[in-house]
Amino acid sequence: MGKTVIIGGVAAGASAAARLRRLKENEEIILFEKGEYISYANCGLPYHVGNVIENRSDLLVTKKEMMESRYAIDVRINSEVTSINRDSKSVHVVTKDGQEYDESYDNLVIATGSSPVRPAISGIDLPKVKTLWTVPDTDEIKKYIKENSVKSATVIGGGFIGLEMAENLYGLGIDVTIVEASNQVMAPVDYEMALLLNENIRDNGVKLIVNDGVDSFEDTSEGIKVKLSSGKTVLSELVILSIGVKPNSKLAADAGLALNEKGGIIVDSHMRTEDESIYAAGDVVEVEDFIFKDKTMVPLAGPANKQGRIVADNIAGLDSTYTGTQGSSVVKVFDLNVATTGANEKALVRRGLVRDKDYTSVILTQNSHAGYYPGAKPMIIKLLFSIDGKKIYGGQIVGKDGVDKRIDTLGTAIRFGATVKDLTNLELAYAPPFSSGKDPINMAGFVAENVVNGLVKQAVWNEADTDKESVILDVREQAELDVFAIDGAVNIPLGQLRKRINELDKNKKYIVLCAIGVRAYNAYRILAQNGFENIKLYPAGVRFYSSTHRNFEEVNEEFVCKY
Amino acid sequence: MGKTVIIGGVAAGASAAARLRRLKENEEIILFEKGEYISYANCGLPYHVGNVIENRSDLLVTKKEMMESRYAIDVRINSEVTSINRDSKSVHVVTKDGQEYDESYDNLVIATGSSPVRPAISGIDLPKVKTLWTVPDTDEIKKYIKENSVKSATVIGGGFIGLEMAENLYGLGIDVTIVEASNQVMAPVDYEMALLLNENIRDNGVKLIVNDGVDSFEDTSEGIKVKLSSGKTVLSELVILSIGVKPNSKLAADAGLALNEKGGIIVDSHMRTEDESIYAAGDVVEVEDFIFKDKTMVPLAGPANKQGRIVADNIAGLDSTYTGTQGSSVVKVFDLNVATTGANEKALVRRGLVRDKDYTSVILTQNSHAGYYPGAKPMIIKLLFSIDGKKIYGGQIVGKDGVDKRIDTLGTAIRFGATVKDLTNLELAYAPPFSSGKDPINMAGFVAENVVNGLVKQAVWNEADTDKESVILDVREQAELDVFAIDGAVNIPLGQLRKRINELDKNKKYIVLCAIGVRAYNAYRILAQNGFENIKLYPAGVRFYSSTHRNFEEVNEEFVCKY
Repeated sequence: MGKTVIIGGVAAGASAAARLRRLKENEEIILFEKGEYISYANCGLPYHVGNVIENRSDLLVTKKEMMESRYAIDVRINSEVTSINRDSKSVHVVTKDGQEYDESYDNLVIATGSSPVRPAISGIDLPKVKTLWTVPDTDEIKKYIKENSVKSATVIGGGFIGLEMAENLYGLGIDVTIVEASNQVMAPVDYEMALLLNENIRDNGVKLIVNDGVDSFEDTSEGIKVKLSSGKTVLSELVILSIGVKPNSKLAADAGLALNEKGGIIVDSHMRTEDESIYAAGDVVEVEDFIFKDKTMVPLAGPANKQGRIVADNIAGLDSTYTGTQGSSVVKVFDLNVATTGANEKALVRRGLVRDKDYTSVILTQNSHAGYYPGAKPMIIKLLFSIDGKKIYGGQIVGKDGVDKRIDTLGTAIRFGATVKDLTNLELAYAPPFSSGKDPINMAGFVAENVVNGLVKQAVWNEADTDKESVILDVREQAELDVFAIDGAVNIPLGQLRKRINELDKNKKYIVLCAIGVRAYNAYRILAQNGFENIKLYPAGVRFYSSTHRNFEEVNEEFVCKY
Repeated sequence: MGKTVIIGGVAAGASAAARLRRLKENEEIILFEKGEYISYANCGLPYHVGNVIENRSDLLVTKKEMMESRYAIDVRINSEVTSINRDSKSVHVVTKDGQEYDESYDNLVIATGSSPVRPAISGIDLPKVKTLWTVPDTDEIKKYIKENSVKSATVIGGGFIGLEMAENLYGLGIDVTIVEASNQVMAPVDYEMALLLNENIRDNGVKLIVNDGVDSFEDTSEGIKVKLSSGKTVLSELVILSIGVKPNSKLAADAGLALNEKGGIIVDSHMRTEDESIYAAGDVVEVEDFIFKDKTMVPLAGPANKQGRIVADNIAGLDSTYTGTQGSSVVKVFDLNVATTGANEKALVRRGLVRDKDYTSVILTQNSHAGYYPGAKPMIIKLLFSIDGKKIYGGQIVGKDGVDKRIDTLGTAIRFGATVKDLTNLELAYAPPFSSGKDPINMAGFVAENVVNGLVKQAVWNEADTDKESVILDVREQAELDVFAIDGAVNIPLGQLRKRINELDKNKKYIVLCAIGVRAYNAYRILAQNGFENIKLYPAGVRFYSSTHRNFEEVNEEFVCKY
């Protein structure tokens, strides 16, 4: 019989405790939680603010009493571990009511999670500048909104929590402004994909300011004033700060455990620190990037839960390893879903990979299910892969339906080292309400395979803007042009292209476009087989063109490719 | 410039034609279609009968005129190829209006599909006994229903089309009876999973008769009378026959091409027949079973579409191969979705594999997304894997939401030869509206891994009925028992089990059960670590117990395990 002490009782800590109990009925397991709540639904907190999750009790997945009665775990809430004594193998505990004591361990698990970043900006400690990370945070924000009948809020940061908070606050009838310092929301997706979100956020009535950082917060009689780097100010009654998190690793650092430069605890594949009696898991640890096999920090619930379980396995003597994080994630932003897995293009460029030399991408529009069955919704898929098609780096999907399914298919394929060819061979379940005979992920494979085989080249989303020599060749019908036409484009409907091919100039560069890319691809192939050498396919079709460009003009940025 | 003749213009044929045109602008491509329509949405036909797909024109995905203008394909409808002359490399064509001619080819593609089976049952050729396979079939059924204000229908066969037709006819206000000769609907899933469908079909108001074949059809003044083997009769105004399909391979057989014993054309991995100028694709061909690498017939749209594309690649000189069919499929049956991938347990037994020696299974209940977020729906997952966990044979899922997504995740993993361990490592996208921190497919992996590691053993669904020595140990709370309790079960709530363990007898066999399996698993582990050796976990929990047993009693079968 051993004694395991776990510091932190939410995702990784609670997973480790429950699994360890099932593996070792006689283990003494003590779970310390600094706060009042263990194993709560942190990913659900924004939805409780928005009353989508109505009952607060639903957030409390496993209560202290249940962990005690069903799992025989000694749960000590309101108990902060303030230091680790590795020599004596004990931790020092300070309780909320001021008691202090030491507790020994055979094995220690550090699952202290992460906390919201609060940079040194003037006014950031004002009471109206709040973060959402815990149940008490949620209670406080809900209470504040209710008691003050809050009518306006500013969300700083356009990541997962920022966007979910914006949606939920807006759902309460609050006037919401999102302020994002970088040039896009949702950093896990690439710029052109984020433009689709911008459009949707704005169409849903939320104000969005990008490329503008916060200089200061000031509490005024009219509300809290957020001064931006551009000189603009945003006035509202409440500010939600959601600009990222940092690992709660001070305890580990004080104990002399090795951290990476971002403060993440360094662990091996068994989730063990350099001290063989100490494991760590969850947001507080550094993990291996699954795609590049280098080190990274990815604060997500899925990895945290799995890591907690792996810690328990290893304490119980099972040989269990964590095989890296690929950043699979999904978020609902109003009626749009955004999902990603693997590396994005920014990450490839950051690592020195060069587009069209080392890697390339395709972007395509696909329906969530058979177009002839009611309710099909288009989704935009971006797939990044090596030039030879042997490695898929990652994918991003934006759409109203079926997005989470396709990212999981792709994420699973990537987990097994899929090639582009492999995607074409996936056999995915089809009936009209669910998919098409060739699923969107098969289609992503087919399109990518065509690129690898030299059958087609895709332009980037703004290539017709940046390459002034290029001309858009729009192969749609006149009726479609009447709805939306692109200035300066040449139009020849696909059905007339073979007859009218002499109207085109082989010395010109054409970027061929249609509604979703199918006709344009056919046109591309006709041109390619008729001696046109300098042609490209506009990715994903005219809706993608108009969404990216419409939004782009609104924010008044320059037409530059961001990679 | 070559000349390719394609026989059959629906899934495989139309795919081959379009792809070939994109690859070879100068190829002469002739597409012969016996009927009037090419490239129609055969999977959508039941939904057009039910007016879910309202516009008939939506079924006609690509019309003849479009194939001609955009793809420059010579489409000849109402033109039946009646023979192939392999020596002269030509086909003989008979048109609907009586013309006959020969057409030469360099490459021939046989994509003649399949047709509904109509066995020699008395009365099967009566006009009121209809099949649904083509657009004209659909027109005929719709017309008949409308003109006769049909109020009752009998669907013979409970497969994909039978169930979809039952749902769609019922949606028109028609009183529907399904008659299935075998002991279950939806042959692709195992017996206990099909019981869940039975329940849902009946709860939705459709009568279901299983284990009863058709002896005869008789047209009477009251309607068409279906006499069953049991002596029962079913009277209705319309019969839809959907008991399977057979390949349309007579043309190939007459030309001396090799067929398998079921009439499927034998092709190599390039979809080429033994005649190097003749390819075949779609329902008419034999394929490799992806799991067992033996040969099988799987008439599904997904494989057909892919095979058509592969044929075109090979004709155009690209080296493209088909890598086998794993039978991934999904069907909506009222508000329940049923999906499968890989082999089911029946297929394992048929191949001589022995349960608990060669393979085993787990069945689990999982929510479609985080339980605390509104709208989560339970799904039942069955996973079949080798005893050592190194091979996953297949999976089946039944539920109201998220079923198609999980079968695709699992199907993709199987495509890459996933082990049970691999499923635990999949990193799937999580946010509360979409999944849980540990996705249902991760959970299937965890549960299966526990079985592989000897941490738990699952009972089969009716083991407590067939093994009279066993006792169900129900670890739910009293309040839950008040809602549904199992006769003869012993009850000790999990939270009391450690204290009350002496009430149990180590010499007895306990099958531990709770609501969904989590508490029961904890109880199992407590018992296992306290010297209880003859215990099993009831799979998927009490809802699965009641659904299977409730339905089972209704159909008045014996309690026998069907494997």
